[in-house]
Amino acid sequence: MPWKFSRRAQNLKSSTIREILKVTEQADVISFAGGLPAPDTFPLSEIKDAANALLENQDIYGALQYGPSEGYTPLRQWIANYLSERDHVSVSSDEILIVTGSQQALDLIGKALIDTNDTVLVETPTYLGALQSFNQYNPEYVAIASDNEGLIPETIDNELASSAKFLYSIPNFQNPTGRRLPLHRRQALAAKAKQNNLLLIEDDPYGDLDYQGQRLPALYTLAPENTVYLGSFSKILAPGLRLGYLVANKQFISKLLPLKQASDLHTPSLTQYIAYQVLSKNNFLNHHIPKIRQLYNARCQYMLQSLAQYMPKEVSWNQPEGGMFIWVELPAYINATELLKEAIAQKIVFAPGETFYVHGEKNNCLRLAFVTVSEEKIDTGIKKMADIIKHHIQQQLL
Amino acid sequence: MPWKFSRRAQNLKSSTIREILKVTEQADVISFAGGLPAPDTFPLSEIKDAANALLENQDIYGALQYGPSEGYTPLRQWIANYLSERDHVSVSSDEILIVTGSQQALDLIGKALIDTNDTVLVETPTYLGALQSFNQYNPEYVAIASDNEGLIPETIDNELASSAKFLYSIPNFQNPTGRRLPLHRRQALAAKAKQNNLLLIEDDPYGDLDYQGQRLPALYTLAPENTVYLGSFSKILAPGLRLGYLVANKQFISKLLPLKQASDLHTPSLTQYIAYQVLSKNNFLNHHIPKIRQLYNARCQYMLQSLAQYMPKEVSWNQPEGGMFIWVELPAYINATELLKEAIAQKIVFAPGETFYVHGEKNNCLRLAFVTVSEEKIDTGIKKMADIIKHHIQQQLL
Repeated sequence: MPWKFSRRAQNLKSSTIREILKVTEQADVISFAGGLPAPDTFPLSEIKDAANALLENQDIYGALQYGPSEGYTPLRQWIANYLSERDHVSVSSDEILIVTGSQQALDLIGKALIDTNDTVLVETPTYLGALQSFNQYNPEYVAIASDNEGLIPETIDNELASSAKFLYSIPNFQNPTGRRLPLHRRQALAAKAKQNNLLLIEDDPYGDLDYQGQRLPALYTLAPENTVYLGSFSKILAPGLRLGYLVANKQFISKLLPLKQASDLHTPSLTQYIAYQVLSKNNFLNHHIPKIRQLYNARCQYMLQSLAQYMPKEVSWNQPEGGMFIWVELPAYINATELLKEAIAQKIVFAPGETFYVHGEKNNCLRLAFVTVSEEKIDTGIKKMADIIKHHIQQQLL
Repeated sequence: MPWKFSRRAQNLKSSTIREILKVTEQADVISFAGGLPAPDTFPLSEIKDAANALLENQDIYGALQYGPSEGYTPLRQWIANYLSERDHVSVSSDEILIVTGSQQALDLIGKALIDTNDTVLVETPTYLGALQSFNQYNPEYVAIASDNEGLIPETIDNELASSAKFLYSIPNFQNPTGRRLPLHRRQALAAKAKQNNLLLIEDDPYGDLDYQGQRLPALYTLAPENTVYLGSFSKILAPGLRLGYLVANKQFISKLLPLKQASDLHTPSLTQYIAYQVLSKNNFLNHHIPKIRQLYNARCQYMLQSLAQYMPKEVSWNQPEGGMFIWVELPAYINATELLKEAIAQKIVFAPGETFYVHGEKNNCLRLAFVTVSEEKIDTGIKKMADIIKHHIQQQLL
């Protein structure tokens, strides 16, 4: 074979989660594993109308031609207006970079900031996809202590904060834990960042999915000079569009631009034009997001109820205020990755927690996704999982 | 400012060509600079029909949901069939990776193969966008000697070939020169690659645009074990879809997959579904590609005629057999980058040749793109350029 791979490529493996997802393609499997949004929330009729309007219009030539690397100007302007209104700040369109899903923003951030052995601070646990992107650039991770409310800013050493390239955080309904960082910790984290000239990467794909519609201030509004904000349309429009955006000051964006060009020239024009058409009509998100919140809240409450009904007292979990995930903690002697094998044999899958820890600190947690699963399947799946877990607990007691 | 950029980001600049393109957005500028395909070739009615069929169908859920990192299976299968038939080889769908434009394939290849200071062989001159992608991973370039027929395989030192990570080539109607590598050189290059275990990256965005429809054998058919082939739909469907593909053996693809996941999870589902709908109906390309060839050939012949009519005898250029570019050589004492400034003052732009050379070897060449320019504008633009050049020649003679 004539290829000699880079050290980077030699060190990487395909995601365990993605390998598991392949099992879930079998029709009779009950999957709590994926991070897929519910297809019931895809705005089909609005996308149809948008596509049809576009196809009948001169704009179609723009939608099919090469476009600017920064993204489609009207879409950038729409995002700037949306954020300015939602977050009571002043964001301008030249502070917006359109990306091919916020996964690409993570790749660009890794490219732009990480040299080999640079320190990157992450939550405990953290989003696997971010680690996969950053891993390409060989950082050293430091995991910040976290509890049921999320990361604990007071535990971040000032010297560490000053020397780190950035801290990566998902403050709203975190993947994998579903945790939301409370206001006092957001304020403490913003202060810590300012004090130590620390850059915060605020990843916010689930921020609009708070069940009560009570948004907490984003880090980029509390420490604007210190924060790069990542937004996504995957959970409020449709992930198949692969559309996200990055908000940062103009100087930072201009540094990312050659990296964005080198990565894919620009995000597809067609998906940007369609998204803009949908978003800009009749305050679309104002009536669409409440529907998603209601659906996801109902499924979440149903799963919480099933957990309470079936799980033995040795198992605990959180009560998410939004988002797509519940984080379950098993007794310390049960390895969730091992448990998964038994669950797969009974055609149930979930995401074992171990892979979300940068140093594999804990192996007795797991992530449950509930938004794509019917109530009947939630009931059946949680009951079967509980039975497997009970069997382990009984064996331990023998 | 809290950000500390990586060495990679510090070394990169935005493309000069892209900066020039911003000038071309002014309506009254005659641009020979861009690499844009002619919008007259976008298959509007087929895309409308495909989108409408998709929107009325259950497939729409797949088109809007997350999908496999490898790409949409029916599209991969279609590409495998297309290549097998066109190139008289046997390509299977699991040898195809869908990418977000072939620019992303270049980024993935850089990621997967290049460590700092690795040797990469390129043509003289070569595609700037490839250099931008590879530059992110800090290779050392060696420019292979080339003449009017393209690179000269005999000049590649065997020791160099054995130690290089790969050789990057555009054998068909190269960007920027429009050159097509003749059969005997393809055979010699394939032999050289086999002999030295050298990997060839064959970038082929213009391959289907040969005016006479007489395709020469692709390198991946001559040295299959040694070649990774890159295809693109930008010039035969529409670049705004950002759709390309990479052909390699399964082992190579499996190594690229985690890098693709880390880059954008997967290429947008919607654009893949639409492209598949268009491509799979009524042998679409069989009647579409001949129309593009005819249009591009006519514009090329018109520009060649204008060059012959207006340019002084000190200026020379090639006679492309396909593609989108003519390569013009000025007298050695005329710097094309300097000339561009004078041309812009007269509202004419072109791509100066210097940026396409890895070591800036020559500055008296320029690239002319003709496919988006009307005959009237070709006539006016070439005449004005010729006048500026004549003025320089006269000054030199004084």
